[in-house]
Amino acid sequence: MAFLVKKFGGTSVGSADRIKQVAKLLQNAKQSGDDLVVVVSAMSGETNRLVALAREMMPAVVDVRELDVLLATGEQVTIALLCMALKELGCDARSYTGAQVKILTDNSHSKARILSIDKEPILEDINQGRIVVVAGFQGVDESGDITTLGRGGSDTSAVALAAALECDECQIFTDVDGVYTTDPRVESRARRLERITFEEMLEMASLGSKVLQIRAVEFAGKYNVPLRVLSTFTPGDGTLITYDNEDSSMEQALVSGIAFNRDEAQITVAGVADKPGIAYQILGPIADLNVEVDVILQNIGENGLTDFTFTVHRDDFQKIMDFLHSRQSELGAASIIGNDRIVKLSLVGVGMRSHAGIASRMFKTLSEAGINLRMITTSEIKISVVIDENYLELGVRALHEEFDLAEENNNTVVSQ
Amino acid sequence: MAFLVKKFGGTSVGSADRIKQVAKLLQNAKQSGDDLVVVVSAMSGETNRLVALAREMMPAVVDVRELDVLLATGEQVTIALLCMALKELGCDARSYTGAQVKILTDNSHSKARILSIDKEPILEDINQGRIVVVAGFQGVDESGDITTLGRGGSDTSAVALAAALECDECQIFTDVDGVYTTDPRVESRARRLERITFEEMLEMASLGSKVLQIRAVEFAGKYNVPLRVLSTFTPGDGTLITYDNEDSSMEQALVSGIAFNRDEAQITVAGVADKPGIAYQILGPIADLNVEVDVILQNIGENGLTDFTFTVHRDDFQKIMDFLHSRQSELGAASIIGNDRIVKLSLVGVGMRSHAGIASRMFKTLSEAGINLRMITTSEIKISVVIDENYLELGVRALHEEFDLAEENNNTVVSQ
Repeated sequence: MAFLVKKFGGTSVGSADRIKQVAKLLQNAKQSGDDLVVVVSAMSGETNRLVALAREMMPAVVDVRELDVLLATGEQVTIALLCMALKELGCDARSYTGAQVKILTDNSHSKARILSIDKEPILEDINQGRIVVVAGFQGVDESGDITTLGRGGSDTSAVALAAALECDECQIFTDVDGVYTTDPRVESRARRLERITFEEMLEMASLGSKVLQIRAVEFAGKYNVPLRVLSTFTPGDGTLITYDNEDSSMEQALVSGIAFNRDEAQITVAGVADKPGIAYQILGPIADLNVEVDVILQNIGENGLTDFTFTVHRDDFQKIMDFLHSRQSELGAASIIGNDRIVKLSLVGVGMRSHAGIASRMFKTLSEAGINLRMITTSEIKISVVIDENYLELGVRALHEEFDLAEENNNTVVSQ
Repeated sequence: MAFLVKKFGGTSVGSADRIKQVAKLLQNAKQSGDDLVVVVSAMSGETNRLVALAREMMPAVVDVRELDVLLATGEQVTIALLCMALKELGCDARSYTGAQVKILTDNSHSKARILSIDKEPILEDINQGRIVVVAGFQGVDESGDITTLGRGGSDTSAVALAAALECDECQIFTDVDGVYTTDPRVESRARRLERITFEEMLEMASLGSKVLQIRAVEFAGKYNVPLRVLSTFTPGDGTLITYDNEDSSMEQALVSGIAFNRDEAQITVAGVADKPGIAYQILGPIADLNVEVDVILQNIGENGLTDFTFTVHRDDFQKIMDFLHSRQSELGAASIIGNDRIVKLSLVGVGMRSHAGIASRMFKTLSEAGINLRMITTSEIKISVVIDENYLELGVRALHEEFDLAEENNNTVVSQ
């Protein structure tokens, strides 16, 4: 018997039949003795439909206050329908909009941050044996205006509720049955991880394994809410995301997974003066263009000159190349070199924190596969390389093999 | 310059283009100096779509609390879209759900009654020069649950707001350009009335001229809110509904209009004992069946026996006939006689209150047209007759002619 938050995304509640399927799943959980708070998104397609209507009204700028009023209806429809389906099954249930359960946020419409939640009415319902169904993605600000948390914000709503209610677990139901060592479409031997740490999950998520919203993972980590990713449609235990617990019986895996990102492009500003402020001189105006920069790398200069390299999203590549060319003389750069046929490949694992030599094993493996490394960056629990996009699959499979990720028993530290 | 509530129904806001058209209309009104509170319904078709979804979830009984949560999204979508359209035109506007402007109701889900409205935020916005857009049809009960006022409740929301805010007029925009002397499809010379009293409007509405919700008219009468019916798509002054103002410069029309109802059926319980309690003995069990009885008529009896006649909706006719036949011996009735091929035809006008002879003119006119009267009932401002359905059009036209309803200048009492 546990006190759980269960969150279902748009695909899981995408039709009347799927909502009934979710209701059945909840009925089973309730009958097994769990107390349940359920968070749901808008039915898939609904948010896009509403956004299209809004665009028709305001072709130019969108009024964010009114957009939030509009979008919040999507989840409100789902909570009502799910409660009806639950009652039809004989489960007592009660729906709450974000405003009704006072998910208080700041007033940043369309990207609001949760400040507090009024847990009393929920706990009251739980004590009465009810299943509580809360609209995800939405809240209310101090002046009573409806706010939304941004796309994917339902994950954040779920984690915030689990934190406020001190639930045993926050379960995120999706269309995948957990977090994998790498993308199974690239490496068929990819294996579902039973556990992963918040830090690893953040690195995996931000690198393109888009199972969970980064914000939700951060939030869960901050409030130490055990997070579980599992499938709505396939039974299973999914993947549990927690802090690496020192006294856990489970030994730490050296490497948890391989993430990659196909959407990047590399830009080098070559032969600029190696002087203080050059990084800001290059990146400041790029940030002003609202373009996000991922990897940044500057090597030791020679003869007072250096090469400054960074990656951006491929969609922004041409814009930034044009922009830098227009500023080339101002920057005093010898040349601007770009390549949008690259990918980023990363090994992730908290195990590498305490074990040297992982990087060299990685580089050796890729070298033996004939893969040239164009950039290398490392963090505490991650080593990333930028390579030619044609070598992505080869690199993923070679590393998956080298670090025994297909093996169930790699949950032990591999010695050097 | 006036302070107005303007209400637009589902057809008026039935598409993105129509919402833009309404926004344009509001912009013009605002520019002419009026202060505006706007009440809108769900886009036409939306409520039916939501009800169908609800039925799919709960084929048997519907949970009214959750149904209200679901249905309230319909109007919420419209308020947001209309505000966006207004802002696109450069008009400052702000939307409010029923809960946000605290349209406090009792907790009778799906047919809640308005108790009070928090007018402060609205007046604040009006003072700031904003157009305030409020979701019709919905409110919130004391415990914070979303309630709805029942179909057509947006009219009631509009009147309640006009009453609370002490507006100069509550304008109901529809697809007709006012209240007519009779149905123009039956009498092509039917004329739009410039004014009509609340009482007359109630008689006209309840008799089948379904321009306005009866509840909204009653509510407007109770709080003395001048009500105007006018068209969203055709410019014009519509029809103003007010109390008959004694010192008005306008003289009172003798007869304002002719209403009729094609949906009735007549049932006679013949030859029952003419004793106290017989009416209740017959109608009590019918009320228990949730069947509404319209006209009730009992004539003086002979030999201690009487005939008891009443009308019901045609849909209920067979059910009630079967029911009465099954109780015939218990009631001691000689026979049960039914006719579902009848219509009710009514003359309405506050003028007839102070002028005798209207009834006899009506009967003479119908008699000269060869129409047999099956039942007659009268009230202060209305005379109704039940006739064979085949004579409906003939009767309407004859009366329209007799009482000069096609003439603009019939706004004077016709002498006998």
